[in-house]
This record gives sequence, C-alpha cells and structure tokens, in this order.
Amino acid sequence: MIKIGIIGVGTVGESVAQILEANRDIITARAGKEIVVKKGVVRNLSKPRNINIPLTTDADEVLDDPEIDIVVELMGGVEEPYRVVQKALQNGKAVVTANKALLAYHRYELQETAGDIPFEFEASVAGGIPIIKSLREGLSANHIESIKGIINGTANYILTKMMNEGVDFAPVLKEAQELGYAEADPTFDIGGFDAAHKLLILASIAYGIDAKPEDILIEGIEQITQDDISFAKEFGYTIKLLGIAKKVGECVELRVHPALVPQSEMIAKVDGVMNGISVIGDKVGETMYYGPGAGGNATASAVISDIIAIARGGKASPMLGFKRALESGLKLLNRDEIVSKYYLRLEVADKPGVLSAVSKVMGEQNISIETMLQKPGKDGKATLLLATHICKESAMQEAINKLQTIESVKERPVMIRMES
Amino acid sequence: MIKIGIIGVGTVGESVAQILEANRDIITARAGKEIVVKKGVVRNLSKPRNINIPLTTDADEVLDDPEIDIVVELMGGVEEPYRVVQKALQNGKAVVTANKALLAYHRYELQETAGDIPFEFEASVAGGIPIIKSLREGLSANHIESIKGIINGTANYILTKMMNEGVDFAPVLKEAQELGYAEADPTFDIGGFDAAHKLLILASIAYGIDAKPEDILIEGIEQITQDDISFAKEFGYTIKLLGIAKKVGECVELRVHPALVPQSEMIAKVDGVMNGISVIGDKVGETMYYGPGAGGNATASAVISDIIAIARGGKASPMLGFKRALESGLKLLNRDEIVSKYYLRLEVADKPGVLSAVSKVMGEQNISIETMLQKPGKDGKATLLLATHICKESAMQEAINKLQTIESVKERPVMIRMES
Repeated sequence: MIKIGIIGVGTVGESVAQILEANRDIITARAGKEIVVKKGVVRNLSKPRNINIPLTTDADEVLDDPEIDIVVELMGGVEEPYRVVQKALQNGKAVVTANKALLAYHRYELQETAGDIPFEFEASVAGGIPIIKSLREGLSANHIESIKGIINGTANYILTKMMNEGVDFAPVLKEAQELGYAEADPTFDIGGFDAAHKLLILASIAYGIDAKPEDILIEGIEQITQDDISFAKEFGYTIKLLGIAKKVGECVELRVHPALVPQSEMIAKVDGVMNGISVIGDKVGETMYYGPGAGGNATASAVISDIIAIARGGKASPMLGFKRALESGLKLLNRDEIVSKYYLRLEVADKPGVLSAVSKVMGEQNISIETMLQKPGKDGKATLLLATHICKESAMQEAINKLQTIESVKERPVMIRMES
Repeated sequence: MIKIGIIGVGTVGESVAQILEANRDIITARAGKEIVVKKGVVRNLSKPRNINIPLTTDADEVLDDPEIDIVVELMGGVEEPYRVVQKALQNGKAVVTANKALLAYHRYELQETAGDIPFEFEASVAGGIPIIKSLREGLSANHIESIKGIINGTANYILTKMMNEGVDFAPVLKEAQELGYAEADPTFDIGGFDAAHKLLILASIAYGIDAKPEDILIEGIEQITQDDISFAKEFGYTIKLLGIAKKVGECVELRVHPALVPQSEMIAKVDGVMNGISVIGDKVGETMYYGPGAGGNATASAVISDIIAIARGGKASPMLGFKRALESGLKLLNRDEIVSKYYLRLEVADKPGVLSAVSKVMGEQNISIETMLQKPGKDGKATLLLATHICKESAMQEAINKLQTIESVKERPVMIRMES
C-alpha cells in the first residue's frame, strides 16, 4: 500500500481524491499497490467538500508522518510550497506537484534536494496532456529542435473567440470571466506569465536551461484588435499566444508572445480552452500533443499518473528531470538576437509622405517589407498593416522606437511576431 | 554498455544504426550507458548500405550471442519473426520490435514468453508518435472510453487529396504509388488491414482484448467517390479511414473503416501522410497525439526510445503491456451490435417510386433517415445520398441487402459510417 498526503485540497486536490476512489480498481491494478490518501491539508476545515478523507490544517502532520510515502503538493503560490516540498524531500518522501509557479522559480533547487527520490510534475504543464513524459521518454532519441506550445487556455479561448466571432478583446475577456475561464485579475493568463512558467519547465527538461520568468521575453495578448485578426485571416494566418523554445546553435531562445501562425499548421487548429504542444525532434520530425490544459479532473489525471509511476517504479528508474535534462551545456539566447518575421500595425495620419517616412525607417534598420496594407480610418487617420521578411529583434525594436517619433504616427506601433 | 543486434536491416534498421551513431552523445547520456550495435542480420550481404556495422545472414549469430542484451526485430512478416523473437526472449534477451503484423497475431504468446524480460513495441503503432507510452503511462489514471486513430498514412494521403483536390480515387492512388506513399499492391494499406493490426495493438494495451484481425470489422477506402466527398463537405464532414476501439459496457467494439468525421473534430484536421490518435479517458477527456506514422527516422526514433528505456530501467519496472493491460475482463463486441449513424449512396433509376421503395426498406428496419439528397446522373440514373439517425449495424446490413433487391437500385449501395 502507498499512502499519500495531499497538501492543498482545492479543485485539483478534490479531483485527485475522488478519482483515486472512483477508479480504485484500475489504479490499484496499474500501480501494483493500493493507493490511499491518508491525509489532506487545508486552510479552512469547515468549508464543505465532496471528499471523504481526513483533513488537517497543519502541513507538518503530513510532512512528518513516517507512514506517508508521497506528498502531493497542490497549494498554489511559490515560497510556502517551496518550504513544504523541500521538507518533504528532506524527509525522504516522493513528491508530486502541479505547481508551475513553484517550478518556474525553484525547480533546480528542488531537483537537487530530491536526488534519487522521485520528484514528478506532469500536471504542471498542459494539464491532462502527458507532454512531460512524451518529451522525456517518447522523444529520447532526438535532439529537440523546437517546442511551440499553446499552453494557456484562457488566452486561447479569448483569441479563438476574437478570430471566429469578430468580437473585440474587452467583451470576450468579460465573457471569459463570467464563464470562469478567466480570473477577476486576468493579467497572469493574458499577459503570458502563466505560459512562461510552463515554457520554462518544458525548456528545462529539453535543454537544461535554468532561466527565470524575468529572464525571458514575455508579451501578452491585450493589444490585439480586429484589425490584426483581419490581416491574419486575409493572409492565411491565425493568432495564438505561443510559448516557444528553440535551439539555435549552442543557445536556446525562449519567448512567450502572441504570434501569427499559418492556418495550415496543426497547432493553429488548437482552439478554445484546449492546449496543444508541437515538438520538433531532429529525427522524428514534428509530433503534436493536444488536450485539456486545465480543469480538476484533467489535471488530477496527470497527478495520478505520476503517483502510479512512482508506486510502480519506486526509486529504481529515476526519470530524466531538471538535473538530468535531455541536453546540457546550452545557454539562453539574448533576446536581441532572436530572428523572426514581424507584423506591425501603425495608426497614422492619412496624408502624403507617411508611407515614405515609414519605409525609410525600416530601410535604415535593413528590414525589408514583404506585405503592406493601408486601411482608411476615421478622423483623417488610417491604419497601416505590414509584414516584414526575417530580421533581428534588436533591429525591429529600434525600428519601432523610431517609427513612433514620426509625427504622422499617432501611437506606438503594435508588433506581432510571425511564425512559419 | 548495452549491446544490441538488429535483425532485419532495411530502411528502419539503417536509421536505427545511423541515429545511434549521429546522436551518440545524447543517447548515451539519456540511457546512462553507451548503446552499441554489435551485429546486424540481413538477407543479402552484398547490397550496398549506408551504415557501418558488422553484418551476417545468420540470425542465430545474434540470438545465441551471450553478449547481446537487446534484440531489435525489424524483419517484416509474421512467422519467421515470431520464431526469432520467441528464441530471443527464451535466451533472456530484451526485445524491441516495430512489427505490427507480428503483434497483431502473436502479441499474447510473446508477452507470455517475455514474462519480466522487457518486450517493447512503441514503433509498431503510428511510427514516431509515442502513443503506446502515453496510453500506458500518461493516461494511467483513466478508464479509456475510446481510441480513434488515423493510423495509416497511405489511406490518409489518398483521402486528403480526394478531399482537397476533387480528384478520384484511382488517379490519386497512382500518384501515391509514384511518390512511394503506396505499395505496388496497395491492398494492405487501403483495405484497412495495416490499420487493423495497429488498432489491435492499441486495443490490447487499453482493454486486454486478444482479438485477431479476422475477428474484427475491416473495410477499406476503395469505394469512396467524389459524390461521397461532396456530401461530406456539404454537411460539414471530412472522410477519414479510422481505427476505432470503444468500450461499451463490459464489451469493446473494434473496427476499421472509412468514416464521416465532423470537420470541427481535431482528428479531422490530420491530413496527408500524417497520423493522429484521439484518446478519450473517463477523467482527462480527449487528448490527441499527432505525428509521422512512418518513415525510417521517425520509426527509428520510437525504436530507440524503447532501447533507451530498457537501458535505463532494466527489469525493475515492467511496463504495462499485453499481459498487464490497462483493463481486463472485457469481451469483443459482436459486430452486429455496433451502433452508428450511417451514410448511404445508391445509384438508382431516375423514375417515380424509387424514393418510396427506399424509404419503405429503411422503415421496415426501424432506421430513421436524417438527411436525403438526390443528384441527377446520366442515362436516366440518379444518385441518392442519405444519412440516418443512430441504428444497429445488423439493421443497416439487412437494409442494404434489401435495398439492392429493389429493381430501380442499380448497384449494391455504398455505406460509410458517421462518427460524432
């Protein structure tokens, strides 16, 4: 028998307890042992819950219980879970966590403490999709050339609605909040920070990169308008918030931002709250993994798959994790060195000389323009939409800085990177 | 150091040897040991090859070599590889195979012989996609409700071309043959037999079903015409050759056939030679796995992932395989008991009374019609296209038998099942 303690019994924790009960027969058969929740740790004992497990408010009752084999950390937050997981590992307990923020900041220290003790985190990225096992086990013969993921369901829901229904950002966000797909403060999701946490986890497994969220390029979807959507549609693209990890020589580029993705790519077809991760291996080519990125049962499915793996494998076969990444010796690419095609939207005064002034700035930065569209606006204004050929991020940032000094350019240009 | 012998050094075997060489650094790091090909077994020693490994024509030189730890079986065929794999396992060697035909017929006997000796076969289904590891490991908390797979690239290439370019079956098949996507005798692929082999492997892992290809419903794509494609498009479907395994109470239904799939489903978007497998778990919901289903490097990527797993895990953690399926105690559903919606195409004489005769037959079988379209044809003929509500396979087969006895019905009706 394997005894587990769940620290943090919210939606996911309740689902873990419920599924262990509902699917007890198959889970016992697959794990080779019965798995029992000995205790759950909550903040508020009097809150009604749909589970039947002993509860406490004291995490140490789990952490110091010699009978508990696996600690399942589902608290949320960073520093308090860090203390809890450290102590669990120090006490020799295996740990399963779904906490992406914790891992975004402390994954290397925790893996160091874990040593040969199982420390698993399948649920921390893309909910029910077994992307971490697929990377570590399924694609182990490959150098990973790139990972491109739609790994935030809230942002994908909003962009899908904007794309399919022609609705603006603000009303779609409001609807997403009403449906419970977006938080009251949605910054974490729509600003790209949640996706960045998940990207860092994937990038560490694939590339051994010890970066923090602050180290990488993160942009959100707040500035996207129907003008951008129309341009995307006209030229065969869709707009997605992507987390991208890409090997470039001995460096790895890491970035989270909205991107124009060709509609023909499989990842462009991942709609609504669903998640999808495309991985290119040097030998296998592209594989893609699709499924629910959130939700109690989907996330719990991943948590329990880790528990089953630990129960079956014990300490015999430590998985490839942060300490033993698929690659090593790679460095984070300076964000100025990123190359991409870019789309720009400029609100300009509708008068002679504007096009020439814009073209001049681009030319000075050696950026060549592939497509340009001018759309009439109101009050003597026009919207200028353009797509560039490949250029360096530093050149593009410089161009944007200069473009907004042109008198006829009314606002800071909006830039979206183009993937292909 | 792990020494392997490769029996059957064709496209995939060459790729295995080449990748082990090209990616030696990362593979050694991931496996924790160096992996060396000690010998390859071929039929013809004088054939030029792009690899540098010792070759022999005598399989026993590998099977009886006490230094060889893992036998990689890539021969093709059924009975000769069966003898080879049996002997390898009896000699205590781990086995990795990509041979779906072998597994379609002998997976249970081989797993029985293997006992605790690693016996792995990730490459046998969907080439480079780690679908078997995902089923066994990633979704282990779930009852698997259904598996729907596009698991034959040749058939999917042909159907995609027919769908996108309005071309008929025969010329597309010819083109596929010229491009090397279809064999000179394409029956195995377009008749659904290859997909059936793969489906049986997945179904055995998920449901413990010991069925043979002869036991299950298999239909090919040969009869599909542009009439069917037009109907599909008009009503929001695409046509795909699917392998379907579905749990129905204590039974499992297994079938391979072309199907009308709603365009909104993720699996409908898997085009060309690519493979995709949608799996529905009772807790996680739908996850989908996409990638190349064939090709030397993609298949070798899966073969090597098995070799690495064996090198790392040894015998400590026997994977869930045929002997320890995810479910047990389920029976194969009699094919007459399958329920589905159906699409029918009838070539009829364009004269009064036909519609009423057709409707009468359907009514007698208690089949209700959801949609009906009549298209004028040449020489006083017409094409009748209809879609039914859900009914039993046995009722539909009976209806088809009766429909062709109607004098105005010129040919046996073509039936395609509808998935939704």
